[in-house]
Formats: sequence, structure tokens, C-alpha cells
Amino acid sequence: MFPTDTAILRLIQFAIHEDVGRGDITTEMTVPETATASARFLVKQDGVVCGLPILPLVFRQFSDSVQIVELVREGDRVPAGTVVATVEGPAHALLAAERTALNFMQRMSGVATKTAQYVDRISGTRARILDTRKTIPGWRALDKYAAQTGGAVNHRMGLFDMVMIKDNHITAAGGIREAITACIEEMRHRVAVKIEVEAQSLDDVRTILETGGVDRVMFDNFIPESVAEGVRLVNGAIETEASGGITFDNLRAYAETGVDFISTGAITHSATALDISMKLVVPRRA
Amino acid sequence: MFPTDTAILRLIQFAIHEDVGRGDITTEMTVPETATASARFLVKQDGVVCGLPILPLVFRQFSDSVQIVELVREGDRVPAGTVVATVEGPAHALLAAERTALNFMQRMSGVATKTAQYVDRISGTRARILDTRKTIPGWRALDKYAAQTGGAVNHRMGLFDMVMIKDNHITAAGGIREAITACIEEMRHRVAVKIEVEAQSLDDVRTILETGGVDRVMFDNFIPESVAEGVRLVNGAIETEASGGITFDNLRAYAETGVDFISTGAITHSATALDISMKLVVPRRA
Amino acid sequence: MFPTDTAILRLIQFAIHEDVGRGDITTEMTVPETATASARFLVKQDGVVCGLPILPLVFRQFSDSVQIVELVREGDRVPAGTVVATVEGPAHALLAAERTALNFMQRMSGVATKTAQYVDRISGTRARILDTRKTIPGWRALDKYAAQTGGAVNHRMGLFDMVMIKDNHITAAGGIREAITACIEEMRHRVAVKIEVEAQSLDDVRTILETGGVDRVMFDNFIPESVAEGVRLVNGAIETEASGGITFDNLRAYAETGVDFISTGAITHSATALDISMKLVVPRRA
Amino acid sequence: MFPTDTAILRLIQFAIHEDVGRGDITTEMTVPETATASARFLVKQDGVVCGLPILPLVFRQFSDSVQIVELVREGDRVPAGTVVATVEGPAHALLAAERTALNFMQRMSGVATKTAQYVDRISGTRARILDTRKTIPGWRALDKYAAQTGGAVNHRMGLFDMVMIKDNHITAAGGIREAITACIEEMRHRVAVKIEVEAQSLDDVRTILETGGVDRVMFDNFIPESVAEGVRLVNGAIETEASGGITFDNLRAYAETGVDFISTGAITHSATALDISMKLVVPRRA
Amino acid sequence: MFPTDTAILRLIQFAIHEDVGRGDITTEMTVPETATASARFLVKQDGVVCGLPILPLVFRQFSDSVQIVELVREGDRVPAGTVVATVEGPAHALLAAERTALNFMQRMSGVATKTAQYVDRISGTRARILDTRKTIPGWRALDKYAAQTGGAVNHRMGLFDMVMIKDNHITAAGGIREAITACIEEMRHRVAVKIEVEAQSLDDVRTILETGGVDRVMFDNFIPESVAEGVRLVNGAIETEASGGITFDNLRAYAETGVDFISTGAITHSATALDISMKLVVPRRA
Amino acid sequence: MFPTDTAILRLIQFAIHEDVGRGDITTEMTVPETATASARFLVKQDGVVCGLPILPLVFRQFSDSVQIVELVREGDRVPAGTVVATVEGPAHALLAAERTALNFMQRMSGVATKTAQYVDRISGTRARILDTRKTIPGWRALDKYAAQTGGAVNHRMGLFDMVMIKDNHITAAGGIREAITACIEEMRHRVAVKIEVEAQSLDDVRTILETGGVDRVMFDNFIPESVAEGVRLVNGAIETEASGGITFDNLRAYAETGVDFISTGAITHSATALDISMKLVVPRRA
Repeated sequence: MFPTDTAILRLIQFAIHEDVGRGDITTEMTVPETATASARFLVKQDGVVCGLPILPLVFRQFSDSVQIVELVREGDRVPAGTVVATVEGPAHALLAAERTALNFMQRMSGVATKTAQYVDRISGTRARILDTRKTIPGWRALDKYAAQTGGAVNHRMGLFDMVMIKDNHITAAGGIREAITACIEEMRHRVAVKIEVEAQSLDDVRTILETGGVDRVMFDNFIPESVAEGVRLVNGAIETEASGGITFDNLRAYAETGVDFISTGAITHSATALDISMKLVVPRRA
Repeated sequence: MFPTDTAILRLIQFAIHEDVGRGDITTEMTVPETATASARFLVKQDGVVCGLPILPLVFRQFSDSVQIVELVREGDRVPAGTVVATVEGPAHALLAAERTALNFMQRMSGVATKTAQYVDRISGTRARILDTRKTIPGWRALDKYAAQTGGAVNHRMGLFDMVMIKDNHITAAGGIREAITACIEEMRHRVAVKIEVEAQSLDDVRTILETGGVDRVMFDNFIPESVAEGVRLVNGAIETEASGGITFDNLRAYAETGVDFISTGAITHSATALDISMKLVVPRRA
Repeated sequence: MFPTDTAILRLIQFAIHEDVGRGDITTEMTVPETATASARFLVKQDGVVCGLPILPLVFRQFSDSVQIVELVREGDRVPAGTVVATVEGPAHALLAAERTALNFMQRMSGVATKTAQYVDRISGTRARILDTRKTIPGWRALDKYAAQTGGAVNHRMGLFDMVMIKDNHITAAGGIREAITACIEEMRHRVAVKIEVEAQSLDDVRTILETGGVDRVMFDNFIPESVAEGVRLVNGAIETEASGGITFDNLRAYAETGVDFISTGAITHSATALDISMKLVVPRRA
Repeated sequence: MFPTDTAILRLIQFAIHEDVGRGDITTEMTVPETATASARFLVKQDGVVCGLPILPLVFRQFSDSVQIVELVREGDRVPAGTVVATVEGPAHALLAAERTALNFMQRMSGVATKTAQYVDRISGTRARILDTRKTIPGWRALDKYAAQTGGAVNHRMGLFDMVMIKDNHITAAGGIREAITACIEEMRHRVAVKIEVEAQSLDDVRTILETGGVDRVMFDNFIPESVAEGVRLVNGAIETEASGGITFDNLRAYAETGVDFISTGAITHSATALDISMKLVVPRRA
Repeated sequence: MFPTDTAILRLIQFAIHEDVGRGDITTEMTVPETATASARFLVKQDGVVCGLPILPLVFRQFSDSVQIVELVREGDRVPAGTVVATVEGPAHALLAAERTALNFMQRMSGVATKTAQYVDRISGTRARILDTRKTIPGWRALDKYAAQTGGAVNHRMGLFDMVMIKDNHITAAGGIREAITACIEEMRHRVAVKIEVEAQSLDDVRTILETGGVDRVMFDNFIPESVAEGVRLVNGAIETEASGGITFDNLRAYAETGVDFISTGAITHSATALDISMKLVVPRRA
Repeated sequence: MFPTDTAILRLIQFAIHEDVGRGDITTEMTVPETATASARFLVKQDGVVCGLPILPLVFRQFSDSVQIVELVREGDRVPAGTVVATVEGPAHALLAAERTALNFMQRMSGVATKTAQYVDRISGTRARILDTRKTIPGWRALDKYAAQTGGAVNHRMGLFDMVMIKDNHITAAGGIREAITACIEEMRHRVAVKIEVEAQSLDDVRTILETGGVDRVMFDNFIPESVAEGVRLVNGAIETEASGGITFDNLRAYAETGVDFISTGAITHSATALDISMKLVVPRRA
């Protein structure tokens, strides 16, 4: 499920460009060009490993002869102190690639780890965690991949692959029923994607159900009790999603309402890097 | 000091591509194409505003007729509830650009805000906060700009614009003195940049001072007392930097050692998004 | 609904590069650099106009001072002999841009026109025409936009925004029921998109209905009578689509089965250019 | 003669991006990641095979271990039912690459096949078919390669590699003789390329011959009888080309006039895809 | 005749990226952001001005409000001390753009100036100077444009727009006659471009004339007397070109042989920069 | 020290694009597709070899099976007549790549050779040659690499990695002391790079020394005697650089002043190509 898109490769190349530029001058002046070495990727905090498929893509930009051995599987939960991969090859390549490789893995593992905490928090309930579009610009595919690796379900990728009618659209259309009707009519002639509508109130939920044609209702900034009431109203007819005002603390209260999905931007916009280091173990002189 | 590099524009265009793709289908089906609107960028947490120069670059990709008014200045510290900018123009452009613009501003303001907390924490001391290369891949220039906006001093941009001799280089060169000597000799014939050396001990500090030619010494994972001793040893001869093992809690203890710089990856790799929203205020039908 | 993606701009720039390269040497040697002119885009066959939004994007690459006046609306059906737009500006810009502009409009209008013929052919029935992924490489967004302009509904954009289980997947999964079950289970943990399943027989249709969780069934290479039977089986529970073996001649027979959608690659892979020319009307010497 | 330009590789990568994006989600959820398979490219209509060199370029983007065996040669004429190539490798790679590979081959074989029909139609005459600049934007090199593969001679690649004086240029220059003279004089100081002039009448042909310095005359929208008269006038002094108003039906009449070249946009702008499918033959579970 | 290709714009953007990167830090720290200024482009050596069309393209990347006034015309010969253009606008934009703008103009004017010296040296003869493919990688279009601006005629742009049979091809084909015959036969079926053949001896010239179908003969490393003999042999039947072993000193001897063209790589591969500076004249504080 | 940046690869690909485009039509029509050959890179002038690492990058774009053998080392000084490398592989690949490979090596070796002449001229003195930002646009990294290969020390890469206060900045800041003070104060809060100041007079040198905080002083357009006086004033406190008005003739006079660095644009902006050819030695028919 790692995104195979060439856009990822371009991001990797640009990331190397911004870190290495015309060259790793320190290594060039202190390490023999023919030296080989090996190194270990050490995870220093409990967490979910994410980003292993990035490693060959980064190191291959420096040398075709770097050997990578993965010691855990993508998505594995590991305790602090776990060596997750080893790399072996030209010392120049290892040292020049180190920070770029780590910056990718730390961000991705950070998102996966935070997501896993949210997923764990609601275990045993019907609800699943959805990610959002609140991702780092340039990182949509990677942030969503990391969220999925951590156990979240991917919401729409962008504005293009699902219809989501929000308050602004409703205002512009002159009412929720008008917005839905216009939209479904238009979709008949344009695109075949899912449609979700944001409800600001239980009345909105009722309108959405009456109007028909909607695939999912989003309870926007509802308190858990109202979400539970909304779930009862919907009664399985369409999918349900809670969003807005959700914190790690109140997360479980929402999950226990019976809602299908809980979406939260925090797993991407407020993830912090997982602490990972690369340690050169056997620098040998050539 | 906003990076004028065209690479930023390409990042913005790619960010729009990944969010909007073939089009904002919801808006297209519910909002009249000729509708105009205005909107306010509302900061919902206390923080440092960063990213205002991004706004015209993002909105201009959708329409030449979006008007942007900045109500605070880049780098201002604002309380929760501050409207920092308003935009006015075609409703389609505003709605399609919203999430991309916010994702940029939230990350950048998040980095600037976290940095400002670190800077505040050491106020009154001689020390200044340095950023690191622990940035989001693709975001080096923006993360460093945001750190600077929050009050940090930018460390080297990458491996190309400063020499930093670390433990791996020392091992490869056969000793700290050998590494420095080799490097300075090489630099005489190659590049004219600053040189910094990582010291693992006070003995290393002494060696660095004796060898000469080094612009800055980095005390790597020293406790504050050892940093203070290192500063005394150096006695102003070269610049000093503390790095490794630094947390928000022990930060001030390091700053009070008299060290010139304290570098920390946390201001970039562990920054979380500042909460900002864009609210459409007057959607009018055309 | 014209795709606002920057990828379109890059295609336009590349198209200009491949036609103009280092310059339009004939015009440079025969037409005064300061000459201005106007020109008319004349549609020479009955058809659906598509591609007007391309015109400013192409001409703006040559000169900021080209004025474009659209005389019909995007998607209008026009008889042979209709002037659909005029352009006015530097003669060098008009002549250098001519072929690129025409090549875009002719392809796009060709797709829209062929689509409209298919749409007309099933008018009065419940069925709607869907496009496919059988588009010119590099032209996915434009071909689908043109199909939509001609009256088709857009099917999925690519492999990423909808699940479609085909025979190969069923073979690999060990059976249709197994494929659907595995897929729905996986989707619970991964993505929130629509799911369509290809049925090779009415038995398959029954299995799909029993298994549940599917949004649409595709009747693959069914004769119209079998489609009608499939529609009766489904009885409105999920969406229905006929695909495979559909020609302009048998199209209406399929549409009259009550099926929701009929998909056909012919509207894109077998569209031919609509005949359009650009005629300079008043070349004046500067 | 397949264009080795890196622009082709970029088109292929973009084509994969637009079809596959973040991933082939259906295959990922239904086919084991380690499954291998083989597949056959089956041409389902009589036609000219074109695009075989594209296959490795497409499949290599997904996996280095896909093996491709070509069973016919580029440009071969094959009957419906011919398997033209087989591929073998990871099932995920084969399935994800399928549509992109087919879309390239179908377009290219479609152009080559239509071209071959035109070439056959004039066999035994002196005339050869020339292509034009009426190609799909972004596809100039591929469309012209396909036309050549089908038996056409490539006309100029774009506005930059040959001078062609058309009616608009003549109007701007104040007369055909003035245009030619100015142009030849300019060329003496600028570029060393071939020069062709469009004649609207036999008088124009005489003027062109008198003025001298022209490499080819184009009879623009002449009836066959006038072309024959033009050929007699030219009497082998320069090359001759008929263009405009040429259809498959009247093509041979033009060819029998003794003209050197007949150019027609139809072989590219009105080519339709050749029907080709990729059939997985041995999907095996890993 | 300035190449309008978007590739030029990309080169300009990359050139700015490599010089300015994340920003002109000196100017940012010493010059007020609101300061405006004007500056003069001063040519400090006698030479041919080339590159004026680059100026707006460079400065526009920094600010839309820079005003540029050209005081001479592209291609003018100017004495040392001539101010060729003035720019006015934000001081930050002028200072950041300065070196990039100068580096372009100095190279282009250097090529044009050297070319003009060669052109002058053969004035009064029939011969014209041709450029070659010996250009700076990435600069083909600009180097050839500059050569043309200096008075040279552009030879082929690359390997794609003209056939040139050299000794290696002749060896591979088994003889000069065989190479020409094969090539002309192939061209009948492939491309319609000019064909030139390299002659190593007067015998080769005779063979070329006998074989027929060739547009131009190149006398490769002939002494002037042999060129004169070659010209007599050809007697106007086809074009003639002298190449190889030509220096500024013996240039006129070649030109007086009656040859049509003399090609030399020196005008591009051995051109040196024309000395040009940009002087800020009125830096005013805002 | 060869720049590993992917930007170099893109330059190589573009250089191939501009030379080869849709294909090397002469070779395609005269040399059998299966022919193999070998070739020698022959340096025809005394010089410094630079650009060997480019060879595999260029040839690999045409064929994976070209074998390259380097016979000298990058940076070696070689006499005219030296074969520096051999290549062996498909004849089509060798012939199509030839000119691009040579154009790179000739420019790079030209810069390295000219630089070595400057370096030799000051041998035995304390001074070292610095390059400048006067490089070919798009070639900054390669020109600086070639200068370093020839024995120069690299000055700053661009406006971003070092502060250099010049006369324009001093004017804008209201005085040299003001400019330095403002800049150092700003740098405390922004960046950690070296700072150099241009002195127009010995008084300026004194002011720079008094103000403090500067890493290097540049004597701008000083006569050698004044440079010597400046060196005495500085007395080793900071680095010294002479720049402006330096020619090959007066170079040694400057070097003998005791100055640390002498910078000159001539080694890049006025370098001419080193004469190198590629000779096919054994073209064999396949």
C-alpha cells in the first residue's frame, strides 16, 4: 500500500537536493572515498515503524551498492531500543543519505505512532479512525499512508474524489436540502463518487435522511450524546462520522456512541517525530 | 527573509495538485461559478503568526482577482481569536484554496510558535536557539524560515554550506586531531566555509583548541555543568554550541552556562500545527 | 469543471515546446514583429464545442496582450460554420500559437462531440453514459473533462479512487465471494471509497447481492436481455452498469434495459478530431 | 527510430501518475503481494503493431523483474487474434501497468494502422504520404513515430526545423514573391533549413519557380487535375506536395498525378485506437 | 528570433535558484525592504549586445514592478562605456537579480561579439559563418541565438533536424556511395530534411556529385587551395561548406575560395564573456 | 567532490534532449542498429582533465551496456595527445552521446585548465585562487567543481551561504560601520555564516577592523602596494582577499603581497573549451 507514484520519488530527490546540494563536504574531506561501512536504524521510543520502503529509494540515489536489511515489518509496533533495519555500503553514501532517510522515517513513524494511540483508545468499539486533509503540503500521500499504517482508514484524498457538502456550500446553495438536491442532480451528469454531508444539528440529520441519496452524514462538533442520538436516527441507513472538537481525552466517549467513523486532523497535523537514529557501526578504512 | 526560491512555488503548486487535482467537485456542484465571497483567517490559539507570504502565492494559483489584506505582521505574537488576514474574491477560488493555505500556515506558525517558546525560556541569557537539519523533507527552507521567524538563528542549511566534523568522521579519520588537520588542509584547497567540531568530552575541547582553525565547538550530550566548564576552557576564543539531550525543561540550565548557541531539533521535528481556520463571512450569490 | 490542476499548464507548455521549439522561423522572417492581427476560430463540422478554457492558457504563453472573445459557451452544440471565438493581438503570437491551440480544441471537441452522439442515442431512457480509463496517456483529466462536457458521467479517475473487482482479481482471490469479503474487510481498515464488482453471469450478480457491501455491479459483456434480467435481480438495491461489447448500434438496446450506467471506451479511444480552423482576418502591417 | 528523448519517459511517468496515483487499491486488497503472473498482449483487429518499445519503459516503472518477450516486430502487420508480446512478473506490477501500457499501444498502433491504409491506397505511384503537425498535444514525437512506422514520411517536426510560407505569411509580406525573396534573404543570415511555399494557384506555382531558392511547392486545395498541371510546370525542378481536401476516397487520384508527396492530418488527428487487450494467463498464488 | 521556448524560462529559474537559493541574505540584512533604486547596465568593452530579452525574464522572477528601458537594440555594436539598459524598482529585486542577469548577458554578448569578429573578417566574400553543435550543455538555443545575433547562420540545431554523414557513418556503411544511397533511400520513407555529406578528399567530392541527392558537401580539413578546387568541381550544383582546421588567421583564405559556408566551433566553445556591470545609481531609503 | 545533486542529472538529460531530440537520424539511417564499437577520448591540447564523472551519466542515458574505462584521474594534468578514457558499446549509443559528452568535458576541462594556469602563476606564495559567482547560468555547481579541480578554492556558492557587504549595501545602510553593525546584529538572530566586507580604501580596512565581527576583508580594486599595506594593517586578525582589476599579468604581484586569497571571475567567465575529440576506433558490423 506504499504509494508507488513517481511524485514520491521526486519528493525524495528534492529532499536530497535541499540537504546535500553540491555535496557532503565534511565527509568528502575526512572519510576516504573508498571506505565502506554499515549502520543500524535504532528506534529510541516505543512506536509504530513506518517508512521502511523509503530507505532503498533514498540510498539508491547515492549508490547502487548499498544493501538494506529490514529487521521488522512495516507497521510493526516496536519497543524503544529496537534496531529496525541495517544498511551496508560506501561510507560516503551512508553518511550523505543519513539525515534525509531519518527525516522521512521519523515523520512517518511519528504519524503512524500517534494514529495507533488513537486507534488503541477506541478498541472494542465499532468506530474507526479516519484521517483528514490536514496534512503537510507535499506530503498528502505519505501522511495518509502513515495514518493507514497506524491503523486509520483513509478519508478522501482531496477535493476531487468525494463530495463533501459543508456549511459554506449549504449557505451558498440556500439550504441543506437545496444543496443536496442540486448536488445529486449534478452528479447524475458528472461524476460517480460518494457523497457526504455535514450536519450541524439533529434536524439537519433528519433532512439529510429525508432528502436521500447521501452516502454518509458527518456530525459536526456534536457532543457525544448528540452523536449517539444521531446514530439512532440514522439507524444504519447510511454511514456516520463524528468530527470536530474531538480530543484524545474525549475520543472514547465518541467511539462508544456507535458511530462508524471518527475523523481527526490531530494524527497528522499534530504528530511529532518518532526518535530514530542511524549509528555507523563498523567504519573501516579502505 | 521569506525564501524567494522558485522551489517554494513548485511546492505550492504540487500541494494544490495533491489537494485539488482535477477540481473541487463539491464547490463546483453547489456554489455558483460567479459567486464572490470574503473570508477571515482566524488564529484559535496563542501563537506566532508565520506564513502570511504564502497566502498570495496560493490564492494566485486559483484567481488573479483574490484580494488579500494582512492584519498583523509576519512573526507577530497574537492571542487566540485574532483575525490575521482577510481574503476576498471568487468563492470558488477561496474554497478550493482554503485547505492548502491553512496547511501551510498551520505548520509554519506551529514551528514559529514552538521556537518562540524555546527562545522565551532562555531570555536574558547570552544563548541563542539554533535550528537543525531535522526538518520535514521538502520543507528545509520553510521550516528554517519559520524557526527564524520564531526567533531562532539558522544553523547550516545542509551538508554543503558548513563543515561539521562528527564522531563518525573522527572515527574514520583516526582521531579528532587528525580529522581537523586533514579537513583544514583540504579546505585550504577547496572551500571557504565555517568549520565546527563535535566534542564528546572536555579533553576533546582542549584538543580542538590546541589544533586551531576551528570556528565553533559543539558540546555533544554534555550535562550543563560540563558545558559551563567547556565554555570556561574556550574562553571566548571560538563560538560554542550545546546540543543533544536538551529538553524544554533543562533548556534554561544550558542557557545559563554562558554557551553561545543551543541547537535543538524539537522546534521543527516536534512542532505541532497552530490551530487556524478560514471562515467564509459573506458568501453572496452572483 | 475545467481541471484547474497545474499539470494541465505543464502539458500546454510542453505542447508549445514540441511545436515551436526555438521559434516560429517562417513567421519571424516574413511577418513584421510589430504587426497585430485578429483571427477567428471556425468550427467546420456540426459538433460540441470543448476546450475554450484552453485558449487563454495557450495564447498567454506567447503574449500577455492577446484578447480572446468567446462567442459560444463551453459545451454548446454548434452547426458547421460557427465562429466560436476570436483572438486579437500580436501577429507573431497568433501564428505561433495557432496549431497548438487547434490541436487541443480539435481533440477535446472531438471527444465531446462523439460523447454527445452516444448520449443522444439513449435519450429518454434511465441510462447514462460513463467514460472509462481508455484515454490518451497524459490526457486523462482533459479526456474526462471533454466526455463530461459532451454529457457523459465520469467514472473513476484512476486505480486510486474507487475499487473495481475484475475477473483477474477474482481469480487471484479464489472466488467472487472471497474477493468481495476480503476487499470489504480490508477497506474497513484502509480507505473509504465506492466498490464495484464485475459480474460475468447472473449467478455472479446473485452472489454479489448476497455478499453485500457492494455499491455497484457491472454486467460484463452481457447481451441486453441478460442486462435486463440483471437489473430485475438487483431491483434498485445497488447501482448497475453495463460494459463490454457495446457499440453505437446496440447502445439503445442496452439503455432500454433499465440499467443505470453504460460505460464505453469508444468516446475517448475512438474519438476523431472535430474540424476547426483559425483564420487570420485582418493582418495589418504595424 | 523510436524517439529516445527523455521527454517520452516523463510522459510515461505522468501517464502512470494519472492512472495509478497513490496506488492500485483494488489489486492491493485482493491479490497477494508476492503473487506472480504472466500475461499476453492480444491484438483483436487486423492492424500494424506500434509501441512495443513502450512496454519495458512502462513496466520497469513498477518492477525491475518484469520479463517482456516480443513475438512480432515493431511495424509488423498482424491479423486479428495475434499475440504480439508476453509479460511475466509480479502480479501487482502487471495489473497496475496494464491500462497505461495498453493506452499507449492502442493509440500508436491506431495511428500506424490508419497510416498504412493510406500508404497502401497509393501503392505503385510515385507519391508518398507525409504526416502533419495535427498531432495530440504532448504526443508530437510519438504520433510522428507511429506515422513513420505505418509507412509515412515525417514532415517537419514543428515550426522550428523548416520554413513553410503560407497564405497568412504571404498576406503579411505583401505578395508571394516578396515573401519568398525576404525569406531567402533572411535565411542567408539566419538558418540553414529547407523552404517550402504554399501555392494557391498555378500562377503561384510559376512565381515560385521564377523566384527560385524554394525546395518544395505545396499545392494547397488543388483538384487532382490542377496538381497534375502543377507537376508538369515544376518538371522535377523542386519537390512537390499536395495538401488540403484530401480524403481516403480521392487519395489515389492525387497520387496518380505524379506529385512527390501527399500530406494529410487524418492519419493522426482522426486515427482511432487499435483494439488490444492484456490477458492474465496464469495468476498463481504466491 | 529570441527563442520563446519555455525551456529558456526553466533555465532562468534554475539559474536564479542556484545563485539566490533561500535568499540574498546580505541585502536582506542591510537594505530596507521598501527601498527602491535604479541601475544601469554598462558595457565595458567594445562588443555586440546580446541578451536584452533576458532582462525582463530575470527581473520579473523577483518583482512585477521592475521597469526596464533598453537604450540600444539587440545585436547593436557598441563601444566600451555604453549604457545599454536601465532598470528601476525595488532595491532587493535589483540586487538579488544582478549577477544572474549579468551572467546571461555576458555570455550571450561574448558569443555574439566573437561571432561578429569572424563575420567581419570575411566581409566582401561570398562565404557566411555557420555555428556548430559545440555549445554549452543546456545552452544550445541561447548559444545559437547569440551566434545568429552576431551575424552567423545557424547550422542544424541537433542530430534530429538534418542528416550529416560523417566518416564514422561512412565506415559503418561500407563506403561513401553506399552511405549516401542507403540514406537517401531511407529518407524517402522516413523524414524530409536536408542532407549533407563530409568529404575527406576531392575524390569524395566527385563521388558525392555523381551519387546525387545531396544538398551540401562539407570539405573536412581541406587546405584553402583544395577547398577552391572543390568549389570548382561542385560548380554551384549543391551548397559547399568548409570545416575543420579553421582559425581566425586563415579564415579569410578559406572565405576567398568561393565556398558558401565556413563552420567553426570557436564562436561558441571559445567565446569569453563580454565585460558588463550593473551599477546602482540612486539607492534611496524608503 | 563531484556534485552529486540530482540537478546535474537533469542538466545532462536536458543537454541530451536539445542535441538528440527525437533521434540521431543520420546514425539511424547509416549504421546497423546492432553494431558495436569502441572509441577513445583524445585530449588534443595540454591541459587539466575534468569531467570524467560525467561520462557514465551521459552514456547511461543511451544504453546500460556502454563500458567506460578511465585512463587518467580526474584533475590530472596531461599533455596534448593523451587518451583519457575509452568507451565501448552499441555504436548508436556512442555516436548519439558523443557531442553531449564532449561539450561537457571540453567546458569543464577548459575551466580547470585556465584555473591551473592561475594557480601555477602564484605558486610559492601564501595566496590561493578563489572563484566567483561569474559562472554560466545553470552551471554554478559544475563551474565551481571544475575550478576546484584546477586548484582554486571555492568562494561562496551563491547569495545564500555567506554574507558579503558590498558598496551598494554600504550606501543603502548609510556607512560601512552602520552596515557591519546592522548586519552582525541581524545575524545574531538569523543565520550563522561567514561575513566578508568589501573595502574601497585603507580607511575602510581600519573601520572594519575596529568594528569587529568580520571574518574576511576584501580589498576591492586596490593596487598591489595597497593590498600589501592592507595585509599589514590586518596583521592576521582576519582573512584577506584581493579582488577587482586582477589580470594574469599582474596576478603574481598581488600574490606576493601576503594576501590570503585572490578572487577572479576570469577562470570561469573567460575560460575556453579544451580541445577534446572522440574517435571511433573499431566500428564493426554486427
